[in-house]
Amino acid sequence: MIRVTFLGTSAARPTVPRNVSAIAVEREGDFLLFDCGEGTQRQMMRYRTGFDLDHIFVSHLHADHYLGIPGLLRTLSLQGRTEPLFLYGPQGSRSTLRAAVTIGGNRLTYEVATRELAPLEAVDFGDYRVEALRVRHGMPALGYALRENPRPGRFDLAAARALGIPEGPLYGALQRGESIEFDGRRIESGEVVGPPRPGRLVVYTGDTRPAPELAERARGADILIHDATFGDHGKARARETRHSTAREAARIAARARVRRLYLTHLSARYAADPSSLVREAREVFPAATVAYDGLTVEIGYGAATPAEGKGAG
Amino acid sequence: MIRVTFLGTSAARPTVPRNVSAIAVEREGDFLLFDCGEGTQRQMMRYRTGFDLDHIFVSHLHADHYLGIPGLLRTLSLQGRTEPLFLYGPQGSRSTLRAAVTIGGNRLTYEVATRELAPLEAVDFGDYRVEALRVRHGMPALGYALRENPRPGRFDLAAARALGIPEGPLYGALQRGESIEFDGRRIESGEVVGPPRPGRLVVYTGDTRPAPELAERARGADILIHDATFGDHGKARARETRHSTAREAARIAARARVRRLYLTHLSARYAADPSSLVREAREVFPAATVAYDGLTVEIGYGAATPAEGKGAG
Repeated sequence: MIRVTFLGTSAARPTVPRNVSAIAVEREGDFLLFDCGEGTQRQMMRYRTGFDLDHIFVSHLHADHYLGIPGLLRTLSLQGRTEPLFLYGPQGSRSTLRAAVTIGGNRLTYEVATRELAPLEAVDFGDYRVEALRVRHGMPALGYALRENPRPGRFDLAAARALGIPEGPLYGALQRGESIEFDGRRIESGEVVGPPRPGRLVVYTGDTRPAPELAERARGADILIHDATFGDHGKARARETRHSTAREAARIAARARVRRLYLTHLSARYAADPSSLVREAREVFPAATVAYDGLTVEIGYGAATPAEGKGAG
Repeated sequence: MIRVTFLGTSAARPTVPRNVSAIAVEREGDFLLFDCGEGTQRQMMRYRTGFDLDHIFVSHLHADHYLGIPGLLRTLSLQGRTEPLFLYGPQGSRSTLRAAVTIGGNRLTYEVATRELAPLEAVDFGDYRVEALRVRHGMPALGYALRENPRPGRFDLAAARALGIPEGPLYGALQRGESIEFDGRRIESGEVVGPPRPGRLVVYTGDTRPAPELAERARGADILIHDATFGDHGKARARETRHSTAREAARIAARARVRRLYLTHLSARYAADPSSLVREAREVFPAATVAYDGLTVEIGYGAATPAEGKGAG
């Protein structure tokens, strides 16, 4: 299961219902954080993500996306953490990220490694990787994609049985794509195993104007989490501040044929009532939702629409 | 009216019910902030203090007391603020406070002036002043006292009438301490006006071991807001980390003969149930209360115990 928890869905400054940007992504024991606005550590407590994280990906250096780092790092230190923590940001971000590591004073109980990522660079996690995506925010800024490796094809049990292959290690070999010798015959994996199936894909834009090059990388994503700072009425303002409207986000979602679109980074004017954003987005792309703080989305395998959890707090 | 709003009452790190340190003090249109932990700006929204503040007094440079400054300053800038803002801290704090001003990137729309205060230095506000108090935290750290100027004595209306003085400007002159000539006689102010009455006094310790020299400066305070990180069971830990227990805070309150003691900066273990702290403090000083986020205390003139408001949010 991949579980996405929205920890902050407000643009620029917090509001009472919405904190500034942060998204927790858990995948089979790994815990990644995407952006870390002020107050994120308290949101993690409120929505019970735990603190067992190892990687923080910062989209860009606007204050509402990283000012939660110093406090979070101090709290991990108070907990006696010893494992290193990895902090990623766009090109040119290292000195500011280092400042965020040191501004809290005192020595941390663990090392923090910072790394700048160029667009399309990726961090490899074995079964999956996190790719830095090119976006359009008028400053060094990245989106991020968590892309799983393709899964082996579907095993056709009936076909295997029809060929007389006994259950056991031979099934495993075929599933892994190997050919086998059986009963004096050579059987190719492709005779009983379908074509590789794509892994899951979660894409987060950070702050951006609509970016077709990002849509390219988001093709078929299970979920796309897109900047939707404004509604139609704020179209000019969105262009001016290098953000997207809900409708523009929906167009990218449609172009990328994603399964589901989550709108985030809402201007304070929509904090309490984002219904107009939902309406505008759905005119273009029906599977659109406005995220809210505490919303968790669980993404399983298969064609089913991702199950949508309730906020935990 | 002086109104004190507790914005954060947790030590070291936030908890779900309590954020890290910050106290808003409003006095006849002035708005001062004492400490500004991460997330303070959102607490200000939640508890409706407004953002019309001009002065931030930082007790010391532990992360939980000042990491809310960068985000708060950015939000004031987004609001288009132009008035300068003043930031005070203990000796040696300037470079870190400057870093907190600049780490959010971009230029602010207003100037921020930083000033280091030595113990017993004061910032003069005309009708009152904020004094930096010596505390004991094993690092440069200050408590703060908001001390009003003495008020003129009580006007004895009956005495004035008995002397035949007509109501009007002569009353005003006498009240201001001047002598008057009336009906061929000289009347001294002291004949109808009592001795000057002390102004109101609000004292905040920041983080500290019990400090008798602070008790000296807090004598007769309307309220004393004291570090009470631990209970009796944490006595050794309090000594080790240079904090106070609730009982130790109560001893200082008793020594200073304050009207009311508010315990704050609670360790996470007391976040949900601070009843043991209240009990231990009241054994020494009955007028003790544990502060909570959103608690507002209104301090009027006179012998009455301060009216205690409800949390606004």
